Amino acid sequence: MIITANEPSLKSWVEVRPGSDFPIQNLPFGIFQTADTQPRVGVAIGDYVLDLKMLAHEGFLEALHIPESVFAQPYLNELMAYGKEKITEVRNRIADLLNVENEDLQDEEDLLADLLVPMKEAKMLMPVLVRDYTDFYSSKEHATNVGTMFRDPANALLPNWKHLPVGYHGRASSIIVSGEPIRRPKGQRKDGDKDQPVFGPSGRLDFELEMAFITCKENKLGESISTSEADDYIFGFVLFNDWSARDMQAWEYVPLGPFLAKNFASSVSPWVVTLDALKPFRVAGPTQEPEVLPYLKAEGLNNFDINLEVGIQPKGGAEKVVCRSNFKHMYWNIRQQLAHHTINGCNINVGDMYASGTISGPTPDSYGSMLELAWKGTKPIPMPDGTNRSFLQDGDTVTMRGFAEKDGIRIGFGEVKAEILPAT
Amino acid sequence: MIITANEPSLKSWVEVRPGSDFPIQNLPFGIFQTADTQPRVGVAIGDYVLDLKMLAHEGFLEALHIPESVFAQPYLNELMAYGKEKITEVRNRIADLLNVENEDLQDEEDLLADLLVPMKEAKMLMPVLVRDYTDFYSSKEHATNVGTMFRDPANALLPNWKHLPVGYHGRASSIIVSGEPIRRPKGQRKDGDKDQPVFGPSGRLDFELEMAFITCKENKLGESISTSEADDYIFGFVLFNDWSARDMQAWEYVPLGPFLAKNFASSVSPWVVTLDALKPFRVAGPTQEPEVLPYLKAEGLNNFDINLEVGIQPKGGAEKVVCRSNFKHMYWNIRQQLAHHTINGCNINVGDMYASGTISGPTPDSYGSMLELAWKGTKPIPMPDGTNRSFLQDGDTVTMRGFAEKDGIRIGFGEVKAEILPAT
Repeated sequence: MIITANEPSLKSWVEVRPGSDFPIQNLPFGIFQTADTQPRVGVAIGDYVLDLKMLAHEGFLEALHIPESVFAQPYLNELMAYGKEKITEVRNRIADLLNVENEDLQDEEDLLADLLVPMKEAKMLMPVLVRDYTDFYSSKEHATNVGTMFRDPANALLPNWKHLPVGYHGRASSIIVSGEPIRRPKGQRKDGDKDQPVFGPSGRLDFELEMAFITCKENKLGESISTSEADDYIFGFVLFNDWSARDMQAWEYVPLGPFLAKNFASSVSPWVVTLDALKPFRVAGPTQEPEVLPYLKAEGLNNFDINLEVGIQPKGGAEKVVCRSNFKHMYWNIRQQLAHHTINGCNINVGDMYASGTISGPTPDSYGSMLELAWKGTKPIPMPDGTNRSFLQDGDTVTMRGFAEKDGIRIGFGEVKAEILPAT
Repeated sequence: MIITANEPSLKSWVEVRPGSDFPIQNLPFGIFQTADTQPRVGVAIGDYVLDLKMLAHEGFLEALHIPESVFAQPYLNELMAYGKEKITEVRNRIADLLNVENEDLQDEEDLLADLLVPMKEAKMLMPVLVRDYTDFYSSKEHATNVGTMFRDPANALLPNWKHLPVGYHGRASSIIVSGEPIRRPKGQRKDGDKDQPVFGPSGRLDFELEMAFITCKENKLGESISTSEADDYIFGFVLFNDWSARDMQAWEYVPLGPFLAKNFASSVSPWVVTLDALKPFRVAGPTQEPEVLPYLKAEGLNNFDINLEVGIQPKGGAEKVVCRSNFKHMYWNIRQQLAHHTINGCNINVGDMYASGTISGPTPDSYGSMLELAWKGTKPIPMPDGTNRSFLQDGDTVTMRGFAEKDGIRIGFGEVKAEILPAT
């Protein structure tokens, strides 16, 4: 099916400000709610949320043969389960209805007052019910930085790193949507010179700048998904903040990996930008040397040119952008990640989330975590209010933003944002 | 609420063979299906499954105020979400109906033909929709054996091990019910003397003898569950086989823990034995030295005296029991596991599964994995058919069984069983 919604010449009759993340070529899906109403499916256009439930109710989506109830769900899972082709069709139809050349909707003033909800009146909710959540570790720069700090600069990457996309399972229950605050976690840590661990609030709370893809199709247990089949399983992307308590992590993580240092919360942006919408922003990934095993070979353009940034705003102060990175830097791509994840027969659910791992770029201002930006606390970052940051402080608000831009078309992700509350 | 169903003097009018796992004092919950019918909730009694949906439909459960539809669900999640007190009430009511002194049911011959389904006619399904799955590593004997084999016998336990119940997140999607076969996974491994990894079927497929508890209550993100509150969140237990591919594990697990070596499958027994039913089998756990941090202190009897065994049956051959262990050996108990898991504010779902980690006892015949039993391949186990086992072979069927027994009452778990199919 042709993705007609991506056509750069399309203009919408809904006003889209220059620099908006949500032109007619984006049309990301999310779950929203307004006062006294139930959660339902919406699509972002300019500064509005288009109410798909109402659009279906009014008969504008009839040709799609999707029951109205699917758009009245509190999660996108049911809609996603229709599969990639149907999603393309939905997005094409919405682009058609919002197209300035289509008069079906734009003159229906009374109806539009209900169909288009101003974003500032909409509460965005978790877009999907997260089934399984996996976190990869796919940025070479990030893995190298961590290896350099904690192990051996001469052998920063572990022997397996260039042979497989290292990943681990994370906690699905504590993935929350942008806007919900984060409670500083308590836990055990052990200071290097002490005999015994101590208990208390983490003193090294960090963000990790990541992106995550969401799956919309199942494979059977025992069957694998090849790199060439992977796109058919991937619905779209969100921004992902993988909050981490570094002191707790250092003490707990051997030999089975991070646990309480990560599972207290992860935050995601509310709008799921489809793989369809990102198609024009595909770029080649870095050369992989040594050559990967056959099941990890992926043809075509496997990376995405998506600009990313992280800002920290102290309570009552001004925000400082502390990191500017790009998703294109990833060494391992999503096709390889999904092929690797299933090469042993592991089965994928509709609604799984697969995060990239921290997306660090090659320069010190592109590192995707405070651990790296302040280099283990040795290079604290000055803030506009005169304070310094080695790690996050209570009252800090961390905001991640992302967008792809080419030929005057900007496909944005909005933001994922959360304030740090003190430990109880 | 008093657990009247546990009364040792109770006798059922349903025949219960001596040595049966399912006397009236057990009454575990499961999901079953018969030819041409929908999955529904059942309770095991003797060699029968009591159909709770039909029991509710016929009005025998009215006093519980649970809609019939809850017993017609394909998973126990909705029923469990009613909470511990209600579950106690359900079990008490069923014990009452099955009691030889109660005539309400036992004379209804026509009805009974439908209400009591012979186990051999019932297909048992996954008892719960698993939300998050966590695997602990709580047997000191197991952790010591692994540390001795792969690291340093003099420092077999890592520094954190006696301070916190080490755990990690696992894959929920690939947890399957007893009876479903296991496909030998393919993946990367690296032989010690080689430069490059190779790809192929795992040559070191192993079982891990574990038990898992299932949660029936949520806490809010940011709130913790104390050791004294933990029981209120725990519905019951299943037997758990945490299949592991040791060669893949050794290559992939640094630095973020096991991934493809575990997530190709885990198997569980179909009957969930309630925490209520296990109450008489509580015993004190081992002394914990050094003293644990205050949030990990747990009062009372924290362990369970549950006999466990593992049998391997080669294709067409006789089974050999290769391991006899006991759940009472666990160093870290379930109250501590849940308190630790949530001390950072991590939220628990209804339907989470928390596995114990391999349950190894103190003697070589009580080790809970082939890795330990055959000591890394150096002491292969002779089988009745003349072959030896260092790890599992294609066609082997692995069966785990468990029961608690005291004062003539046996509370059994049935079994978790699966055959190994060759890699595709």
